[in-house]
Amino acid sequence: MNVGLLTGGGDCPGLNAVIRAVVRRVAAAGGRCTGILEGWRGLIREMTVPLTVAETHGIVGLGGTILGSSRTNPYKNPETDVASVRAHFEALGLDALVAVGGDDTLGVALRLHKDFRFPVVGVPKTIDNDLDAADFSFGFDTAVNIVVEAADRLRTTGESHRRVMVLETMGRRCGWIACYAGMAAGADYILVPEVPVDLGRMLDSLARRRQAGRHSALVVVAEGARLEGPADPACYPPRDAPGMPRPEGIGASVAWIIENRARVETRTLVLGHMQRGGIPTAADRVLATRLGLAAADLALRRRFGTLLTHRGGQIAEAPLTAENIGPRSLDLAYYDAAAASFA
Amino acid sequence: MNVGLLTGGGDCPGLNAVIRAVVRRVAAAGGRCTGILEGWRGLIREMTVPLTVAETHGIVGLGGTILGSSRTNPYKNPETDVASVRAHFEALGLDALVAVGGDDTLGVALRLHKDFRFPVVGVPKTIDNDLDAADFSFGFDTAVNIVVEAADRLRTTGESHRRVMVLETMGRRCGWIACYAGMAAGADYILVPEVPVDLGRMLDSLARRRQAGRHSALVVVAEGARLEGPADPACYPPRDAPGMPRPEGIGASVAWIIENRARVETRTLVLGHMQRGGIPTAADRVLATRLGLAAADLALRRRFGTLLTHRGGQIAEAPLTAENIGPRSLDLAYYDAAAASFA
Amino acid sequence: MNVGLLTGGGDCPGLNAVIRAVVRRVAAAGGRCTGILEGWRGLIREMTVPLTVAETHGIVGLGGTILGSSRTNPYKNPETDVASVRAHFEALGLDALVAVGGDDTLGVALRLHKDFRFPVVGVPKTIDNDLDAADFSFGFDTAVNIVVEAADRLRTTGESHRRVMVLETMGRRCGWIACYAGMAAGADYILVPEVPVDLGRMLDSLARRRQAGRHSALVVVAEGARLEGPADPACYPPRDAPGMPRPEGIGASVAWIIENRARVETRTLVLGHMQRGGIPTAADRVLATRLGLAAADLALRRRFGTLLTHRGGQIAEAPLTAENIGPRSLDLAYYDAAAASFA
Amino acid sequence: MNVGLLTGGGDCPGLNAVIRAVVRRVAAAGGRCTGILEGWRGLIREMTVPLTVAETHGIVGLGGTILGSSRTNPYKNPETDVASVRAHFEALGLDALVAVGGDDTLGVALRLHKDFRFPVVGVPKTIDNDLDAADFSFGFDTAVNIVVEAADRLRTTGESHRRVMVLETMGRRCGWIACYAGMAAGADYILVPEVPVDLGRMLDSLARRRQAGRHSALVVVAEGARLEGPADPACYPPRDAPGMPRPEGIGASVAWIIENRARVETRTLVLGHMQRGGIPTAADRVLATRLGLAAADLALRRRFGTLLTHRGGQIAEAPLTAENIGPRSLDLAYYDAAAASFA
Repeated sequence: MNVGLLTGGGDCPGLNAVIRAVVRRVAAAGGRCTGILEGWRGLIREMTVPLTVAETHGIVGLGGTILGSSRTNPYKNPETDVASVRAHFEALGLDALVAVGGDDTLGVALRLHKDFRFPVVGVPKTIDNDLDAADFSFGFDTAVNIVVEAADRLRTTGESHRRVMVLETMGRRCGWIACYAGMAAGADYILVPEVPVDLGRMLDSLARRRQAGRHSALVVVAEGARLEGPADPACYPPRDAPGMPRPEGIGASVAWIIENRARVETRTLVLGHMQRGGIPTAADRVLATRLGLAAADLALRRRFGTLLTHRGGQIAEAPLTAENIGPRSLDLAYYDAAAASFA
Repeated sequence: MNVGLLTGGGDCPGLNAVIRAVVRRVAAAGGRCTGILEGWRGLIREMTVPLTVAETHGIVGLGGTILGSSRTNPYKNPETDVASVRAHFEALGLDALVAVGGDDTLGVALRLHKDFRFPVVGVPKTIDNDLDAADFSFGFDTAVNIVVEAADRLRTTGESHRRVMVLETMGRRCGWIACYAGMAAGADYILVPEVPVDLGRMLDSLARRRQAGRHSALVVVAEGARLEGPADPACYPPRDAPGMPRPEGIGASVAWIIENRARVETRTLVLGHMQRGGIPTAADRVLATRLGLAAADLALRRRFGTLLTHRGGQIAEAPLTAENIGPRSLDLAYYDAAAASFA
Repeated sequence: MNVGLLTGGGDCPGLNAVIRAVVRRVAAAGGRCTGILEGWRGLIREMTVPLTVAETHGIVGLGGTILGSSRTNPYKNPETDVASVRAHFEALGLDALVAVGGDDTLGVALRLHKDFRFPVVGVPKTIDNDLDAADFSFGFDTAVNIVVEAADRLRTTGESHRRVMVLETMGRRCGWIACYAGMAAGADYILVPEVPVDLGRMLDSLARRRQAGRHSALVVVAEGARLEGPADPACYPPRDAPGMPRPEGIGASVAWIIENRARVETRTLVLGHMQRGGIPTAADRVLATRLGLAAADLALRRRFGTLLTHRGGQIAEAPLTAENIGPRSLDLAYYDAAAASFA
Repeated sequence: MNVGLLTGGGDCPGLNAVIRAVVRRVAAAGGRCTGILEGWRGLIREMTVPLTVAETHGIVGLGGTILGSSRTNPYKNPETDVASVRAHFEALGLDALVAVGGDDTLGVALRLHKDFRFPVVGVPKTIDNDLDAADFSFGFDTAVNIVVEAADRLRTTGESHRRVMVLETMGRRCGWIACYAGMAAGADYILVPEVPVDLGRMLDSLARRRQAGRHSALVVVAEGARLEGPADPACYPPRDAPGMPRPEGIGASVAWIIENRARVETRTLVLGHMQRGGIPTAADRVLATRLGLAAADLALRRRFGTLLTHRGGQIAEAPLTAENIGPRSLDLAYYDAAAASFA
C-alpha cells in the first residue's frame, strides 16, 4: 500500500511528528509512504519525495514540516487543478492520502471525497485551537508556552519600569491562545474575540490594581479581539481624529488607549510567527504522534472520508464533514477562570 | 469564612498556582485564607502564615510550594497528633481546609473527614500521574518536558559517540513519565513497571537498529521498572557474581546489560529531583489554577468530604473516597503508541 | 558604612545579581546597604528600602531590578532636584553610592562627583553593549540568547512556507545584538547602524540563495539601522508615494522591500521589550556578580569617582570620565565573521 | 585546496558551528572540504564524507558533531595506524587538516606535525574549559547554562522540603563548570579540585545558614573534587566501616556527609552527559564560528603546525606546542567571588 501524505495551511509544531508516525506505522504494516510537497500544490504539480523510516529519523522534535506547506486550493481552478490532483494521484500509484491541515485543507479533502470518493483521511491541525474536531490541537501547547515565556519576560521589565505591557497573541477568530496563556501568565486583563470588549471595565480593573499598589500590569490580547461596538468612544481614538493617528493592530490600539486614558506608560509586543515555529513541547509531540499512528491505521484499513477527532482526551474516528471541520470558539469557562486574576 | 490551605507530600510544579487561585477566589467571595506550613505538620504544630492576594502575587509561575511540604502523618501518633490537628484547627478559627496532596496526604484528609466530619476539600497532586482522580495531574507536564529536554540533549552526544544513552525517569509505581516522555523523545526502547521487562526483546530491538545503520540509541526507563522475573538470566548480573558488581538503580542496571550483552558503549543519566522543580509549564499552571478555583468554590459552598477530579478534560466534584485516591497505572495504549518507534 | 545603591535607565537581566553581590560584600565587611528606589528619582524624593542579605536572597536569577528604575535626571531641574539628591543623601546617613546605569545615569554620577565630590562608584549597564567601559556588558548575553531562540523558531516556519523572515532586534545606536545574534542564528543577512545599508547587495544575496535552492531566509535588522542615504531608491517606498504606505519601523520597511522587490513572501517580528526581561543567562549572572563585588570593594575602600570596566575578560577600576561612559560601536570584525554566512 | 576536517575526543555543543564556518570560508576561497569521520579513526580507516555549504546548512545550532568523534589515537599503534593516517591523507588528496579537539586529539596533531611536517591546524575544544589555549572554550557556556537551569529547579524543590541539594557537575581535572555555574546559581557551597576540600568549613557554613533561618541549601560539586587528604575523618565514611557503605561518586559522598553529619535531608543529582549535548548557546555558536573561520584562514594560508587561542576576548594564532595544549586550572578569583555567597 502506498500512502500519500501532505501538510497544508499554516505550519505548526508537531507536523513532523505526525509525518514520522504515519511513516513508521505504514512501514510496519508493509506499506510505503510518498510525501507530497507544499500541500495540495504538490499534487497539482506532482512534487513528491519518498518518505522512509530512515528519512524521517530524528524529526519528532523538529519544528515546521519537512514536506513544506501552502494555502493552494485546487478548487480555485477546478477544471485544471482538480483534474491534475486526480491524475497525479493515479500516476503516483497512491492508494490513500493522509491530509493534515485546517478547515481549508480539509475542506478540499472533503470535496474531493464527496466528488470522487477520493480515498482520504483527515488529520485536524490548527495552532489556534479553533477546529471543532479537537478539544486541543497539536501546536497549541507549544504556542501557549512561547507566549507564557514572553509574558514572564515582559513582567520583570514592566515591574522595573512600572509599565503596562500589552502582549498580542495569535488568534484571528478565537481567543484560545490569549486566554490560556493569559491564565498561565497570571495576566491582569485578557481580550478575546468571544467576549465583547469592555474598555471601561479594563481601565477600571487596571486602576484598582494601581490603587492596591501594583504599578505594573500585563494585558494579553488576541489578534482577533475587536474594539468596535459598544466600547466607550471616549476610550478610543477615532479613525479620523486630527493629530491622533490610529495605531495599527489591536495590541497597539489597546496600548494607545491605556497610555492615553489611564496615563501610564505602556509597551506592546506582537509575538507573531514566533508562536508557530521551533521545537514542539512534549505534549504536542505525543498528541501529534498519536494522531499520526491513528491516521495511518485508518488509511491501512481503508476507512476513507474520515477524520480524526481529539475529544475528552480520546482520539477517535469521525466522518469527514463540514461540521467536524467547522470552527470552535473559546470555552468561556476558561475565560471566567482567567478573569479570577483580574483586579 | 476562613479557609485553611496545606500542601503535603512530594512537591511539584503548579502547587503555587493552586494556592494563588484558592486565595483569589476566597478573597473575591469575601473570605480569607490561612496558609498551613509543611503539610499536616503545620496543623500538628500550629505553624501558619496569612495568605492574601498581595502575598501570593507573582507566584503562578514559581516552582515548589511557598507553604512548604512534608510527609508527616498525624495518624502515626493519633492520640497526640490527630488531637493537635483538631485543636489547632479550632484555635485558628478555620471553617474549611483545602488539602493538596497525593494518596498519603489525602488519605489523612479522608480519615479526618470520616472520623470527625472534618470540613476538608481534597485536590489531587501527583507528579507521577498515578492517582485515579486525574487523567492528567499538574506537575506531570512539566516533568515530562524536563525529561524530553534532557533526552534531546542526550541524543546529540549519543550520536556523536555512537553510544546508547539510558535515561532513568521518576515513576516508582507507574510508567507515565517514562512512557509519555519516551514517546515525545522518540525513544528507541522504554521500560515501565506496567509492562513485564523483556530484556531479550530490548536487545533484539537495539540490534535491529544497529543493523539499519543507526549506532546510537535512547532508552528511557522508569525508576520503578523491575528486572526480576521472567528475564533471561544471561542478560543480568547476578547479585553475587564474583567480580561483577551489580549496579545500583534500574537505569545503571539496564545500561550494564546493554554494555555487557550488546557490547556497545552505554551511558546513564538519572534525572531525579530535577524533574519536580522549577518553573511550571503553561498547561500545569492552567490546570492548577482551574483546580484551585474549583477547590475554593467547594470550600465556600461547604461541600466537604469531597475531592476534585480531572477526567476527559473536565474538572468535577467527587466524594473523597479510598477509590478516588487509589492508584492509576499507565494506559497501555500509550505504551503501544510509543512502541511504534521501536526498531 | 552605609552604602546606597540605585539602578537607573532601561532595566536588563543581571541588575538583581549586582544588587545581591553588593549587599553581600558590604555586609561581610560589617557595613549595611540602603536601596534607592527608581534610580535618581529615589534620591530626589527619598524613596528607599533597607537591603539586607535576607532580603536579597534568591534574586540572583530574577529579571528586572527589585529597586525599580527610571530615566529621571536631577540635572534637568538642578536647583531643586540636585539639592534634594544631596540633602537626602545626607539625611539618609549614606557614606557612598553605587550607581548602576548607562550613559545617562552615570553622566549624573559624573557631574555630581565633579560638582560636589559626591562619593559615587559607577557600574556600567547597557543591554545594547554600547558603552566604552565594557567589551561585554551584563544583559547582553541574555538578550542575544532570546533573539537566537526567536530566530530558531522563525527559521522552521520560514522554511515550511518558503518565506523570508525579518527579525528586528534592539540596538538604536549600535548593531551588537543584531550582529552577534545573527551570527549565532546563521542569519542570511544582517543590517546594523555601523555598516551603510546596501539594499541592492542584500537583494542580490537573497537571490543567490534562492538560486542555490534555498527558498527561505532569515534577515536580522538592528532597530537603529537606517535605510536613508545611498540606497537604491528603486528599493524603497518613497514617503509620499500614492497608494504605497510606508511601513513603520526598520524591520517592516526591510520586509516591504524584500516582498515588493524580490517578490517573495516576507514576515516581520519586532522582539522589543522581551529582549530585556526575564531570567538572566549564567554568563550575565556571573558578570553582574563580579561587578557587584568589585563595586562594593571600591565603595568600602572609598575609591569614589570611579567606574568599573570589563575589558579583555578582566574587571578593573577606572576613573569615572565622559570617555569611559562614551559610546561603543560594533566591532566590525564580528560583522565580517557574520557576513561569511551570507550567500 | 582540499581541507580535511575532523573532530576528536568528547563532543560538545558548538562543534557543528566550527564545521560549518570552516566549510563556508574554504568554499568562499574556492577550496573544498572533506569531512573525516570519528576523529583520527576516520583517517586510519579512510572514512570520509564530502562537506559542502549545502550539506552543512542549518547545523549552526545543532548539538554534537555531524562528523562523529572518537578517542582513537594512531600513536597507540604507530607502525600501522600512523602510517595509515599518512597514506589516507595522501590518497584523499588533502592539502591541510583542521583538527578540532582537546589535549589528546591535538597531541596527535602535534606529533604528526613534528614527525612529518603534517599540515595541520588545531582548534582547541574542551567543555571543561581546561585547556591553556583558551580563557573560555566553546561548549563551556552551554554546559554552564544547563547546570544553572538544573540548579534553579533543584532550588525550588529543596526549599519546599527543607533539603540540601547536591549537584555534581562535569570537571574531572578542573572546577570551571562547578564554580562558574555555582556562582550563577547562588550556590551555598562549591567544591572544586583546585581548592582543598574542607568539610568542616562546609558543614559550618551550612549550619550558619540554617541558624539564619534558611533550611534549604544548594551545594555544587565538581566531579573531580577529592575528599581525600586533610578532611576531618569524622566527616567521612571510611571505606571499610561495617554497615556503612561508602557511596559511589563525589556528589553522593558529599550528600552522605551532609545527611549524616549535619542531620539534614539531602538529595543528589549527577548531571553527567546531559551537560555536553543539545542546542548550543548563542555565545558558544559565535565563538565556535569565529574559531572555524580563523582555522580555515590558517589552512588557506598554509600556516600549519599552528593552533588558535582565545585569550582576552581575542582569537589569535599560536604555535601548536605542548604548552599551548596543556592544562588550565580554575582562576581562583572566580572561586573567591563565588564564595562571597557562602554563609
